[in-house]
Amino acid sequence: MKNTFGNALKVTLFGESHGDAIGVVIDGLTPGIEIDYEFIDRQLNRRRSKTQVCTQRVEKDDYKIISGVFEGHTTGTPLCIVIPNRDVNSSDYQLFGSVARPGHADYTAQCKYHGYQDFRGGGHFSGRITVALVAAGALIQSALEKKGIFVGTHIKKCAGVEDRDFSDYVSDIKNLHVSQFAILDEEASQKMIKRACEIKNSDDSVGGIMETAIVGVPAGVGEPWFDSIESMLSHAMFSIPAVKGIEFGAGFKCAEMLGSQMNDEFYVDGDSILTRSNNNGGINGGISNGMPIVFNCVVKPTSSIARKQKTVNFIDKLDTEIEIAGRHDATIIPRACVVAETLSAIVIADILIGRYGTDYLL
Amino acid sequence: MKNTFGNALKVTLFGESHGDAIGVVIDGLTPGIEIDYEFIDRQLNRRRSKTQVCTQRVEKDDYKIISGVFEGHTTGTPLCIVIPNRDVNSSDYQLFGSVARPGHADYTAQCKYHGYQDFRGGGHFSGRITVALVAAGALIQSALEKKGIFVGTHIKKCAGVEDRDFSDYVSDIKNLHVSQFAILDEEASQKMIKRACEIKNSDDSVGGIMETAIVGVPAGVGEPWFDSIESMLSHAMFSIPAVKGIEFGAGFKCAEMLGSQMNDEFYVDGDSILTRSNNNGGINGGISNGMPIVFNCVVKPTSSIARKQKTVNFIDKLDTEIEIAGRHDATIIPRACVVAETLSAIVIADILIGRYGTDYLL
Amino acid sequence: MKNTFGNALKVTLFGESHGDAIGVVIDGLTPGIEIDYEFIDRQLNRRRSKTQVCTQRVEKDDYKIISGVFEGHTTGTPLCIVIPNRDVNSSDYQLFGSVARPGHADYTAQCKYHGYQDFRGGGHFSGRITVALVAAGALIQSALEKKGIFVGTHIKKCAGVEDRDFSDYVSDIKNLHVSQFAILDEEASQKMIKRACEIKNSDDSVGGIMETAIVGVPAGVGEPWFDSIESMLSHAMFSIPAVKGIEFGAGFKCAEMLGSQMNDEFYVDGDSILTRSNNNGGINGGISNGMPIVFNCVVKPTSSIARKQKTVNFIDKLDTEIEIAGRHDATIIPRACVVAETLSAIVIADILIGRYGTDYLL
Amino acid sequence: MKNTFGNALKVTLFGESHGDAIGVVIDGLTPGIEIDYEFIDRQLNRRRSKTQVCTQRVEKDDYKIISGVFEGHTTGTPLCIVIPNRDVNSSDYQLFGSVARPGHADYTAQCKYHGYQDFRGGGHFSGRITVALVAAGALIQSALEKKGIFVGTHIKKCAGVEDRDFSDYVSDIKNLHVSQFAILDEEASQKMIKRACEIKNSDDSVGGIMETAIVGVPAGVGEPWFDSIESMLSHAMFSIPAVKGIEFGAGFKCAEMLGSQMNDEFYVDGDSILTRSNNNGGINGGISNGMPIVFNCVVKPTSSIARKQKTVNFIDKLDTEIEIAGRHDATIIPRACVVAETLSAIVIADILIGRYGTDYLL
Repeated sequence: MKNTFGNALKVTLFGESHGDAIGVVIDGLTPGIEIDYEFIDRQLNRRRSKTQVCTQRVEKDDYKIISGVFEGHTTGTPLCIVIPNRDVNSSDYQLFGSVARPGHADYTAQCKYHGYQDFRGGGHFSGRITVALVAAGALIQSALEKKGIFVGTHIKKCAGVEDRDFSDYVSDIKNLHVSQFAILDEEASQKMIKRACEIKNSDDSVGGIMETAIVGVPAGVGEPWFDSIESMLSHAMFSIPAVKGIEFGAGFKCAEMLGSQMNDEFYVDGDSILTRSNNNGGINGGISNGMPIVFNCVVKPTSSIARKQKTVNFIDKLDTEIEIAGRHDATIIPRACVVAETLSAIVIADILIGRYGTDYLL
Repeated sequence: MKNTFGNALKVTLFGESHGDAIGVVIDGLTPGIEIDYEFIDRQLNRRRSKTQVCTQRVEKDDYKIISGVFEGHTTGTPLCIVIPNRDVNSSDYQLFGSVARPGHADYTAQCKYHGYQDFRGGGHFSGRITVALVAAGALIQSALEKKGIFVGTHIKKCAGVEDRDFSDYVSDIKNLHVSQFAILDEEASQKMIKRACEIKNSDDSVGGIMETAIVGVPAGVGEPWFDSIESMLSHAMFSIPAVKGIEFGAGFKCAEMLGSQMNDEFYVDGDSILTRSNNNGGINGGISNGMPIVFNCVVKPTSSIARKQKTVNFIDKLDTEIEIAGRHDATIIPRACVVAETLSAIVIADILIGRYGTDYLL
Repeated sequence: MKNTFGNALKVTLFGESHGDAIGVVIDGLTPGIEIDYEFIDRQLNRRRSKTQVCTQRVEKDDYKIISGVFEGHTTGTPLCIVIPNRDVNSSDYQLFGSVARPGHADYTAQCKYHGYQDFRGGGHFSGRITVALVAAGALIQSALEKKGIFVGTHIKKCAGVEDRDFSDYVSDIKNLHVSQFAILDEEASQKMIKRACEIKNSDDSVGGIMETAIVGVPAGVGEPWFDSIESMLSHAMFSIPAVKGIEFGAGFKCAEMLGSQMNDEFYVDGDSILTRSNNNGGINGGISNGMPIVFNCVVKPTSSIARKQKTVNFIDKLDTEIEIAGRHDATIIPRACVVAETLSAIVIADILIGRYGTDYLL
Repeated sequence: MKNTFGNALKVTLFGESHGDAIGVVIDGLTPGIEIDYEFIDRQLNRRRSKTQVCTQRVEKDDYKIISGVFEGHTTGTPLCIVIPNRDVNSSDYQLFGSVARPGHADYTAQCKYHGYQDFRGGGHFSGRITVALVAAGALIQSALEKKGIFVGTHIKKCAGVEDRDFSDYVSDIKNLHVSQFAILDEEASQKMIKRACEIKNSDDSVGGIMETAIVGVPAGVGEPWFDSIESMLSHAMFSIPAVKGIEFGAGFKCAEMLGSQMNDEFYVDGDSILTRSNNNGGINGGISNGMPIVFNCVVKPTSSIARKQKTVNFIDKLDTEIEIAGRHDATIIPRACVVAETLSAIVIADILIGRYGTDYLL
């Protein structure tokens, strides 16, 4: 499906970093969702967040909803969000049409698009396209919250510093939504930024792990085989540039666990059926069991670094070296967190609308 | 898409463990592929493999291709494989319509299907359905090998024992295809089986990590966003029961790496462009770069264990306990490896047929 | 999507006329639908109906539901129906691997499948595959009737003889379901059969028009653009071999009408909003308006006729002649009617489940 | 799939008539297609064509390709075309949020979107959205012509006047592309316009039949069942507002024909296999046979007419009357022809790219 994802709710991406605009179309939305512009702005602001670790293009994202909204509510027809590209300086990028930046898609794009790709600023591969995903996802996220479903992502670990675990999910998620840096523990935040800056000053970059929690999803949604909740979420998460792994619940730690440790025992709590542990991350057999859906994604270090690297000119097929000019992020994980949580909201809304019908979010 | 997966090549699953049959339909296959029945039998045999660690139902899988093949070749029309269920004893399973086995889908199935699910033997959630996937995948795997594309999965780690790394991919993969137990190092194999048996004898089970390598995929296939190679493979892998995580290339280790360590430097090697390291697992920006595509999946310990566990009766909403009768596997990782490699073959064939057209595998 | 159709409810076809079996997989069905075996048998019987005009293979269709049903109800997992092929005599068909029967797909199959197609008995192109569609559709049709939605198709015109129009839709549809020949007027039926037999006796065949009515669909389902009710139904109807045209409501007569004649004026009838005429066939802007959805399909004369025809040997690229042995139908319209009504039921169920959620048919 | 259509090539529509903009995203295009801006302009100009019969909004369509094109060629990434809405006067339309125009979607939209639809100017149902389809289709049409595939649509019949038949397809199609009014015979054109004007002056409107021919498609593309060429084209054609029927080749005339008349006899012509007649419209068993693909669509009379009509206020559920202010088209068939031919080009390109791979149009 290439640039379209989803079943009941379909998301279609378009745009190049240095083209006219980037954007997204969402189709299948419940009519009558009130647009929470403030929430969208806040999420876009968080994604863009200028800190010492993230210094890329800081222009305000003047997004425009050009269809699918009437008098402040979704109409139920395709909603298109467009974000124009401004103040673009493409001169630095001419090189990448022939010399591959290690870790980037310059060479693979050449193989796929035969030289017709727009190589300026990463083109269609640019993380900038996630601005559109965040705007769309934020709109859906605020609608889900009215149904009691909350989605939040924090930096679990970066630059050797760990954040605290989620304690009260809903309150932690609400706090994340009003904080600039997606961390639960303020002290960890300071340390992490400090350490990332040191790495950046040594012309290098660093990766990390982000943890997402989705709470309030009713038990019994998802599919046993190809469209398990894990399949749908992982499919979406690997669309975030730099994500190289995902694990649900205990994840890779299962490899060391015994069945008696891994199995989540059920118990009755009033009217509810709950599990004491949550090693399965809220999912059994691909279907939600009512517990929080929890997963980690690993984000690789920013590929663009200032130091000299060996590479090739893929047009001339010659070995060469590259120094990537400009100011580079120490890590993209703070903004990846905002993308992960909004994209998760889209996936969950897709699953719920498929199960309960078009009017679910009303 | 529920039980259908793929774009150019669509796979549709059906069946319940104790129903009449399980099976698969594959649509979009190149006409004229010679069916390698021996290869299919070998892969089914490997999946079924009775060792001390895997003792589940050992009946021979009498699969039957009931459409899409004529005079030993694919016709290009939908190929349906049916595997009848035989010697089924469902009496043990009556319980699971009301008492949830921890780690299993009994409770989530109830929430989704309102009590109409076939709960016998895991029903539609049963790992037995992967027999159909293996048969279909093996057929495609042998066709890919004629194009120089090899897919193999080994147990990287289980029960605290590690296998050696791939050294020569093609020869290692060929060896895996003729070995009963998906391990490269014979000594590790013996240790692993011994350790797993001990765990089993203590009425417990164990998980592990399996590593898949796909070699020979040309550079330039895959998609930048939603249908990245990572997205497609992870979507498929999470369909394998018990998989709880996936990582490509350096995977979760990226979290500790610097950009200068993670970036794979390119170099020219004769007519080819290669990378010195393969931390990105053969994929840049969602698209193949010509290096081996390499990923790990974590498999959780078998959920069915003999020891007593706390759980609930979800019909009566009462706390209770369960002891699961029968002989249980210490681990399902040996058979999960066969499923992973055949399912990977299906995903890669889908991507290649989408890119190069219907006749690609001829 | 080739052999898979539908959004919320997906139907996948497989099989060849002289292979082991033909069949269908339906995925996305509401769990808990009671299987009305008698209704299925009746529809299969109607499809197979041996009259003087239809004399093809009259074997009983021993269909078997091999998955997705448990204790007489759908489970909500993929339902697979298999119909084995028996008493198959393929000797007559060897010819069609090289000599094209006019009006048939022998030559186009060769171009598409490069000679690997199973050409015996029409192979995957055989109308026999509709047996699976009828079984699946009948199952859904009986579930729809419990929701007050009735679907029926009659022969509007054939061999120069016209049937009467629908008068009371529901009672006419119920009558069609218990009659062997899909005609409302008994006298027309006799005339039509007589006339068709005469044509058959002159070694020729004849086409006709079938009219389908779907009543009880609530107003407000369907989509404005690509998945209009017209788009979905026409997509499905052109899967019926021999259908060459479709028209909704006044259809091709619109070309001669004025806007003031064509527009259906609305009026209030108690709690309902109705239209006085139904020239738009129950659909405005692709969406149901609550009136009966009504459309005609034209069915071409049976391509197989006994008389000598000019054609080519497409292997040798030589002009030649053909006489098609065997007993041929004067027309396939009686069985096409059963296929049309059951396939329409599938399309409508797909649209309703997409709109109202998975549990709609419960 | 709602507002997304296609398999290998996906088209996604968005926009409302009186919103900010309307547009389209096309994904799956071959990279390297040279954009023929002149051809696009010409087709948009033809669609907009102000004649005596078509007097609706005549603003120039300032389309903008905002992604997927770089240095005058497609990049192979999603191509988004946006057409801003200008000079919009919505005051006349407030009424249609409560009073249903007969033949329009005001009432069905209310049922589907619960009052949240943008009812101004037809909203998402407006024929204006076809501007985006025409721009996208024209781009593809010019690429197809370089492969020898030509697509053209003319008004076969309107207001009681008939156009001549296609004689030399390619030259007739080329002529259509440079004429303002989609008619082959100049004399018929004058008569038709005159007759349509008379109808318009009597406050009424008129429908018609348009014929499309697609020549140069190689034999052997399409699918036997759900994605037959007929299915794909009809699915697309019923997205054109006002189309109520479609027929391929002899179409509804088959109902009166004998098999011996309908069957197209094959003959060898040099290296080619052709048929003497083309009653099957270039398609056997859903697959192209190399002959021109020919089909008719019927277009209903414009629903908006000046004369008073009976209808309902669907909010208050009261009978009422309506007079629709403004200048109305006598018929929309001239612009529907341009939409039909460009949309047909999209469908054919989808089928060909699916069969021959992504690079087909290069």
